[in-house]
Order: sequence, then structure tokens, then C-alpha cells
Amino acid sequence: MTIYVLATDHVDTSARLCDYLITRLEGSDTVHAVNSLHGSDKTESQEIRDGKEALSVIRSRLGGRVTVETHQLVKGNDPAVDILTHATDVDADELVIGVQKRTPTAKVVFGSTAQSILLQTNRPTAVVPLTDTES
Amino acid sequence: MTIYVLATDHVDTSARLCDYLITRLEGSDTVHAVNSLHGSDKTESQEIRDGKEALSVIRSRLGGRVTVETHQLVKGNDPAVDILTHATDVDADELVIGVQKRTPTAKVVFGSTAQSILLQTNRPTAVVPLTDTES
Repeated sequence: MTIYVLATDHVDTSARLCDYLITRLEGSDTVHAVNSLHGSDKTESQEIRDGKEALSVIRSRLGGRVTVETHQLVKGNDPAVDILTHATDVDADELVIGVQKRTPTAKVVFGSTAQSILLQTNRPTAVVPLTDTES
Repeated sequence: MTIYVLATDHVDTSARLCDYLITRLEGSDTVHAVNSLHGSDKTESQEIRDGKEALSVIRSRLGGRVTVETHQLVKGNDPAVDILTHATDVDADELVIGVQKRTPTAKVVFGSTAQSILLQTNRPTAVVPLTDTES
């Protein structure tokens, strides 16, 4: 009976996280999928639609196996804050996040949301690569 | 039938990683525990003993449940290189690493080995906090 909090911002992210998580899930588990947007003039309506679609992928991929709750949060928070707060609220056993590693110009980056989450949480966190690197 | 590569450098790290992983293991799984040391004048004999003890904890905690292989590598490599190479060699499904987050003076840090691994691997990686933070 594991409670996961999963962070997603895009259908592709959702697909990768589901590919990973689906092998681990048992029927008594719960997945809370969170899409966090800043809101006001920092958020385009397209981002809201992208977020809803991203959450929809989680529901359709995992909903038949486990309890899935989806949450689109537009509270003016940094996404890391929303994810960490939600993890505390539901007392998550584990977080599941994706990480981008390269920009289109091949510069190595490490997502700032991922880094913030890893630096601040006391919970185990599964980090799933979203882009293939060379190693 | 999951193949894990687990990185450890200390008995305390081993204990935390086992606490996490033991809930996930099934009898057909294999755990490769790796302790990487640089060697030559960069490695004290105490580090070698610490590494052996760290691996011994993994064997005694997990060995009754799954296949456990332990490897102390002293090849002159950066630990991240040894872990990533070993993960490739055994075609690991997932890496399991610990992360230190604060120095004794409470300065926030993120372990450089952990960061190197996360930046370079294409494999899902479970990141287990080794020190409690405030959030």
C-alpha cells in the first residue's frame, strides 16, 4: 500500500513516468498526479491545456490498476513547492519525477524543479530520465 | 526480475538504502552493490575498511531475500564512472543511490556523485535521502 506523488507537465512526461511506474504498482497503491502551474500572467492557456492532457494520460494508463487522483494546481507557487506540499499533505511514500538533461543544443542541464525537489524532500524519489543521453 | 545497482560508501548509507529497497524486492531480483574508491594516495586504508563494511551490511540485510553481489572497485575512477559503468555491464533496470543534503554547518549541498550519476544515466534512479531536512 504505497502512496506515490507524481509530477507531470506534459503528455510525454506522463508517458515516461507511467512506463516506469506501471511495473511497480500493486492494486492497493494510490497515485496522486500533480500538475503545478504558476498562474496569472506567467501561465498561458496552452499550458493549462497541456497540464490537463498530461494528467489525463496518467488516469487512462494507471486508473485501471490503482487509485489515481489528479490535481492541477494554479496557486502562484513554484512547482517544487506545490509538489512538496502535496507530498506532505498525503504523506507520500515516494515521489516520482522526470528529469530533462539536455537542451536542444546539447548543453547539459538538470531541471531546476527536479533539483529543488531532490534538495528539499525527505522522501525517496524516483528520478526518471525524459531524454536519452550518451552514457 | 529487476536488476538493481546500488552505490554505497558507508554502513549508514547501506542501512538507509536497504530500508528503502527491502520493501520493493522480489525473490527473482538481483542487487549489485558497488563501493567505488579512487585508490592510490587518494584512498586511506580506513576507507577501504569502511567500504567493505558497507557492502557487508547489504549482504546481510538483503542476501536472504534476493541474489546479492558486492563489488569493491579501486580502479582510479571517479565513483560516478564506476557506478555507471557497472550499471551498463549488468544492464541494470534501476540505480539506487543516497544523497547527502546538508553539511554539519547546515549549508545545503547536493552530493556531486549523485548529481553526476543523475546527469549521465539513462536509467531510472531511486534517490534516497541520507540526512533529514526541514521540509
